[in-house]
Order: sequence, then structure tokens, then C-alpha cells
Amino acid sequence: VDDLASLVERLPDGAVSTHPGELTSRSRDAWPLAMLREVRGDRLPRPLAVVFPRATEDVAHTLEWATETRTAVVPRGAGSGVCGGAQAVWRGVVLDLSRMSRILEIDDESQTVRAEAGIRGDPLERALSERGLTLGHYPQSMAISSLGGWIAAASAGQASAGYGAIEDRLLGLTAVLGSGRVVQLPAAPRSATGPDLRRMFVGSEGTLAVVTEATLSVARRPESLRWLATAPSSFEAGTALVRELLQRRLHPVVVRVYDEVDAGMTFGPVGHGSGPVAIAAFEASRVGDAGLEEARRLALEAGAGPLGEDYGRHWWGHRNDAVVLYRRIMGDERMFGAGVIVDTMEVAAIWRHVPRLYDAVREALLEHASQAVGCHLSHPYASGASLYFTFLIRAEDDAAAERAYLEAWRRAAAACRGAEGTLSHHHGVGLLKAPFLVDALGPAAVSTLRSLKAAADPAGILNPGKLLETEP
Amino acid sequence: VDDLASLVERLPDGAVSTHPGELTSRSRDAWPLAMLREVRGDRLPRPLAVVFPRATEDVAHTLEWATETRTAVVPRGAGSGVCGGAQAVWRGVVLDLSRMSRILEIDDESQTVRAEAGIRGDPLERALSERGLTLGHYPQSMAISSLGGWIAAASAGQASAGYGAIEDRLLGLTAVLGSGRVVQLPAAPRSATGPDLRRMFVGSEGTLAVVTEATLSVARRPESLRWLATAPSSFEAGTALVRELLQRRLHPVVVRVYDEVDAGMTFGPVGHGSGPVAIAAFEASRVGDAGLEEARRLALEAGAGPLGEDYGRHWWGHRNDAVVLYRRIMGDERMFGAGVIVDTMEVAAIWRHVPRLYDAVREALLEHASQAVGCHLSHPYASGASLYFTFLIRAEDDAAAERAYLEAWRRAAAACRGAEGTLSHHHGVGLLKAPFLVDALGPAAVSTLRSLKAAADPAGILNPGKLLETEP
Repeated sequence: VDDLASLVERLPDGAVSTHPGELTSRSRDAWPLAMLREVRGDRLPRPLAVVFPRATEDVAHTLEWATETRTAVVPRGAGSGVCGGAQAVWRGVVLDLSRMSRILEIDDESQTVRAEAGIRGDPLERALSERGLTLGHYPQSMAISSLGGWIAAASAGQASAGYGAIEDRLLGLTAVLGSGRVVQLPAAPRSATGPDLRRMFVGSEGTLAVVTEATLSVARRPESLRWLATAPSSFEAGTALVRELLQRRLHPVVVRVYDEVDAGMTFGPVGHGSGPVAIAAFEASRVGDAGLEEARRLALEAGAGPLGEDYGRHWWGHRNDAVVLYRRIMGDERMFGAGVIVDTMEVAAIWRHVPRLYDAVREALLEHASQAVGCHLSHPYASGASLYFTFLIRAEDDAAAERAYLEAWRRAAAACRGAEGTLSHHHGVGLLKAPFLVDALGPAAVSTLRSLKAAADPAGILNPGKLLETEP
Repeated sequence: VDDLASLVERLPDGAVSTHPGELTSRSRDAWPLAMLREVRGDRLPRPLAVVFPRATEDVAHTLEWATETRTAVVPRGAGSGVCGGAQAVWRGVVLDLSRMSRILEIDDESQTVRAEAGIRGDPLERALSERGLTLGHYPQSMAISSLGGWIAAASAGQASAGYGAIEDRLLGLTAVLGSGRVVQLPAAPRSATGPDLRRMFVGSEGTLAVVTEATLSVARRPESLRWLATAPSSFEAGTALVRELLQRRLHPVVVRVYDEVDAGMTFGPVGHGSGPVAIAAFEASRVGDAGLEEARRLALEAGAGPLGEDYGRHWWGHRNDAVVLYRRIMGDERMFGAGVIVDTMEVAAIWRHVPRLYDAVREALLEHASQAVGCHLSHPYASGASLYFTFLIRAEDDAAAERAYLEAWRRAAAACRGAEGTLSHHHGVGLLKAPFLVDALGPAAVSTLRSLKAAADPAGILNPGKLLETEP
């Protein structure tokens, strides 16, 4: 507490809060297990204080103080992470970036935007939209996630086929290393001046540095999208169809393939009967009739009959509803009752391994989850794709649900590795997957990550236990 | 020499050479200043030995030995680097990857190729071509550069508009850290499991690790290209036209704009008179007539009259001739005589700064170079582009040429920074630009690079003095 007084002295008035409500609301992110624990009355780790920086220098002062006093700091964007990456740490402080949310510059000529890290997706996209621009980065969490969070968690949006993931938009940034040192990387389209330090911060989950500002590449807003929807004979046939679309370089903006279970949940409202569904969107002004015709022909040749354009439009119109639903599931209303937990797992592999990855992870999850494990492919590349599983665990009570949940994750992570998949495509590692990281990446890669951590954060104050397990 | 005996013991027979011819031929890469120094009779730093690994474990044994004996190791691909990055170090060994040149696997389904780092561009592309595939990575040095060199130097090829640069093709790799520890990063289309370690090795210039194998994403070989060529009223008008092409997402594969001097050198053979030239290529099967028509219309609206398709085809057919020419310039034949040195400088900036960057660097170079400073834009992005300057210095003798050369670089680097450009787009830093790095990136970023270096190569044996200047 003496320590906290010395932090208060270094920062502007009102930057440090110890209000109990603030401490509680920053004790966790949207990790389902933490929600379950909270609902059942467990005490989650409450921080000593919440720090609200308004400028990069406030962040630097906080990290200098934390390094001196060996206080753990948990950087926090908007708290929508689903792996516990922003869960508070006992006797640590939470560094909440939400008051650093200004747009600093939009450059119409270079098509770039520079903004503070705490800005959320919706206001950022709205401001760009007024200039006829878009970031093209549309994670489902858009309304409840922040620019800094996207970088820290290596976010990918629903239009990644067209616009890439967050690292593909990132041109420059300002970050404060654990030591308090400020690193400024000016915007450059590309550079060959040593390893790209921008990339060191993407996916670092608050363990190396706190990103305070970023410059991103934006695009002209497409006037409209043209949708295709088809009914492939199987999920595997649907993935093969998407592979062909991508490898032919037809430049879709959005591509998704749903297995039967997931298709039922997603397209029930448009009257979908049974079987998998594949949808794709193209920029109307770019695809041309010949390109669309080629995509349609490919689908027919693959035995995938046409579905109405309403499938794509329905999905686009409702694509973020799940976020609202999700909050309700685990929140106050507790839709599904005690002993129930819902989560998602997103993995990726090169095409050759995708069918095996689908089978292996699904089977592992079904050992503990209800029959309703659904999956969709949502981020395709020329070389492979991600698979996104949704699963629901139902047990006698919350304690049993927790045990089943952790065991389901353990088995699914092992199954993923066995099928040569990568442990996460875009949700990150956090607390949830940290125990699986050595198995997933191998000891040499994890040891290299630990070296990076030691280099950027010598006192080890930044987000301890996240991404990398705390060493014994 | 005792030390060397213990290295020989650890490696297969014939892996270590102390043959004088080998030592001499590995004393430098294609850095023009080193060539000038050699021609005028300076003794370049000769290595103690050249090591020819045949497997990753040979590299690991060599680096373990070097760490134990504190011997400098200079990794070498094919030696085509132009910044001195592979120049030998006194009393060090050169680790020549040329005998690790096998293609290990081509996966037609995932469209990936896995190969050893020493393979050169031409055989790699030939093998892919036989399967109807292409890497899409066509640096001018194609025939005389290697996969490992591309990764180490952050290479970008002539079709980067269509296929991205080397990091955009890189899915996985095996690297040996300075400590001798082997890191294997399996191929993944994307991953959110911590900072992307693949990217730590791109542009590391042999200072952190030696890449021994890589898996790359390849593409189906386009059947043909459709070329456009136009005559913009000025270089700046040409760059604005390219910006529009890119920002409209017309998906060109190749885009180049030449200023008047460079256009004269490049398109003289097709009868080009005066003025700048812009050329672009599109995949015939992807662009569609409407897209080509749109590009043509944009050019006309920008006041750029049409030129014949032979401009593009001529360039494509002769695009790598300069490599042959270049070797002649500085090699045995010494085309231009004593006191002459020719070099290139490639920088990049976001669009807003491109015109100022062009003026500033050109002006700085012209203070020391002959009037014939030519420039072209060759790697466009939605957010900006690179500029590639060719310059020739002519002085009384080779000593005066060296002084003028170093001063020209010093001034051009400062001009680049002043115009908010990045110091290198794809040639890297090496020995040549290491003195400018702190000024270019700032002390905090360079200090972070030094931390990475200390983490990956604690004994500091890997390529000392390259990229990062040796600390006093």
C-alpha cells in the first residue's frame, strides 16, 4: 500500500482507482471458466488497484514503478478475451487502457489510421466509415474488444480472407516494454532493418510490452458484397471446395463452411434443413460475373447444390449476435443453469491435415461435451484453414463442470497436436492454454519465448502466468 | 587452430575446408565496396575455415563449438547480398549452406514446399514449375541467391504485389540459435500461440540463428500475364497512379514505375524516347476485361498515355540481366574502370511521404554520384511503396571513390530518415547500414534488437558487427 502511494504520486489525478466495484469488474475477462467460478461464488483474484493511463508516459511510469516494486501488471483492453489472458493477479494492478481511445489521425492518401490502443472496434470502424474507409477487421467481438487487445491477442476478423488478420493491417506502433522503456516503430509498408519488432508484440498477450498506439492500413469501403451459398455433401467436401476457391486466387472476402451441427444452429432462422453449408462473399466491384460464375461452377462440380443468397446475407446481418448470447449464457441470466459451461476452440492446420484435425478435435471434445459439438471453417488461406469448434459441457454441478471442462481442453489440445494442428488460430493462449504450450510448440520454441520475455520484461512484472506458465 | 581440430572432429569428413581458394571466395559477398576494395588489392578479412554442413545437426555442432570457443560464425547462403552481411570476420569461420540444397517435400494439396535453406531460387522454382506451381518469389538475384538468404535478408521479389514478400510465403522453419539449440516451427497457415517466432528470423541477417530448412506457401502457376504500360507525365504522377491501382484492390501481380533516368536505361532497347514509364502485370485468368479496362481508364484520366505491351514483356524477359551486368561492373572485367563504384539503395515509406522521399534521397545521392541517379518504384502496397535508386560514383581513384561512396550513403540515409522513409525495403542492413541503424530506428528499438540478440546468441558468436554495430 505504501507502494501504491508512490504510484499515485507519479500519475495524474484520478488515474489510480481502488474502488471496490472497479476492482471486481477488472478481476476477469470473458474466459468461460472464470465466469463459471464467479457465478458459483469463488473469489477471483482481485487487483490492488486499477490504473487508467491517458498517455503513453502514464503507462511508462506505471511499468517503471512496477519494475521497481516488483508488482505484477495485467494490461487490459476491453476484457473480451476468452482465455483468461486479462485475468487479474493477486496483489497486482490492472492497467486498463480504456481511457486511451482517441483516433489521432486518418490519412486518406496513405489509407492509414493512427489511434490509441484502448479504442474499441465499433467507434474506430464508424470513424473510418465516415471517410469511406474500413479497417476490414471484423472480429465477432467488434463492439467489446479494443485495438490494443487485437494486437496483443493476434486477432483475426471475419473478413480475414479479404483483409488478412491484424498483423497484416499493422504498420507501426508505440509500445512500452516491461522495463518502462518506450519503443516507437513508425509506420512503414515494409522494412528490412532487422527482425520486424512490430511482430514481436502481435500475440504477446501483455507479457512483453503494453501497446499504447498503433497505425493501421485501411481500405476503401466496398460498396456491396455478392454472396454465394451452397450445400456441400459433407464438411470435408466443403473444405475441399474452399481450398479450391483460395488456391485459384478468386479473392473472396469472407468464406465459411459449417458442419451439420453448426449449420443447424446458424442457418435455422433462414429455414435450413439438414447438412453442411458453405458461404462466400466477394466485393461486388472486384469479382466480375466470370469470377462468380467460376465459383458457382466449382461448387456444382463438387456436388454442392446452390442455396439462396439469403444464407450469406442472414449470416452477415447476424454475425455478432453470438456475443450478446454468449454474455447471457454465462452472465447474470445464466441461461443454461448450474453445471453448464460453453466454450469455443479454434485451431488451424495446412489443408492436408484439416480433415484429420476436424475428426480428432471433435472426437476429443465429444468425450466430455454434449453431442452438440459444432464446427465451422472461417479463416481460409491458400495453404490451410482454421477450424472453430463450439462445445457445451453439462455436469451435475459447477465443480464437476469445471473438471470436465479442463479435461476436455487437455484432451482436445493433445488431439490437435496429434493431428498437426496449431493450438490457437486467433483466441490466443492466456491462462487456459498455457499448460499445453510446451507440448504444442516444443521446449526449444517455448524457451525462446521465455528469452524474449526476459529481454523485454527483465523484472517479470508483465502479466505473469499468461501465455507462459509461471516457472516453479 | 587447436580449436579448429575439435570442430573437425565433431563434423562429418570433408565438412571443414581450409583450402585457400575456398577461404578467399568466402571472404565477401556482393557488397560493391568490398568488391572495390578487393579489386584495388586490399586484404579482405579471410576466415579461418569454411564449414559445409549437410544437415541441421552439423549446424548445431558448429554453433555449439563456436559458443564454447567464442569463435565468430558468418552464415552464408549464396553470397549475393549487397550490404556486406556475409562478409567474413577475422579469425572466424564461414558457415556455407550451399550443400544443404535438397527439396524435401512438395505438397500439392496444401500447396507447400519444404526445402533446405541452401537451395537457390532457380532449381527451386524449376522443381515447382514441373508441378504447375510457383513460389511467386522472384528477386532479381534468383539464380544466385538462396532460400535461407531470402529469409535472413527479408527478401522481396519482383512480383511482391501479387505474392507478397518472403515472410508472406513462410509457413514454418527449422533454425539453430547461436547457442546451438534447434528450434523447429512446424508449418501453420497462421497461429496465435505467442509472438510469431518465424518472424524473428526474417531479416535477422544471421545474427540470431541459422535457418536450415523452411516450408513455404506456393501458388498455382498462372498461365499467362497481361501487361499494361503507360507514360505518366512525371514520376510523381506515376506513383499516384500506382497508389490508385493498389487502393482499388485491382490485384496486379507486378507494378513498376520508372523515373526518366531509369526508364531510359531500362526501356531504351524497346525504343523508349524520354519520360517516365509505368508497367503493370495481371494474371490473365484473374483480372477480367473489366479490370484491365478500369486500369487503362485510370491511366488515361491521370494523363498517362498508353505504351505498347512490349514494354512489360521486354522488362519481364530481361528483368534479371542486371545481375549479370552487375557482376561484370565490379568483377574481373571492371567495366567502368578505376575510381568507379555502382550501388543501389532501396527505401520505403507510406504514400504521403513518397514524393518527398524521392526528392530527398535523390538530392542527397546526387551530391556525390554522377548525374545518372535513376529510380524506380517496384514494391507497391495499399499504404505505400518502395523506391529503388541506382547510382554511380566516379572519383580520381578507388580510395577517393570509397570516401565519396561512404559519404553518399551517410547523407542518403539521413535524407531518408528526414523524409520519414525506412532505411531498407529488402536489401537489409549488413555492414553497410549498421552505422545508421540507431538513427533510423531510434535507440529503444535498437536496444530491443540487442536484447533479442543476447537472448538467441548469448555468446555473441553469430555474424558480429552485421546489422548491429559491435559495441565498444
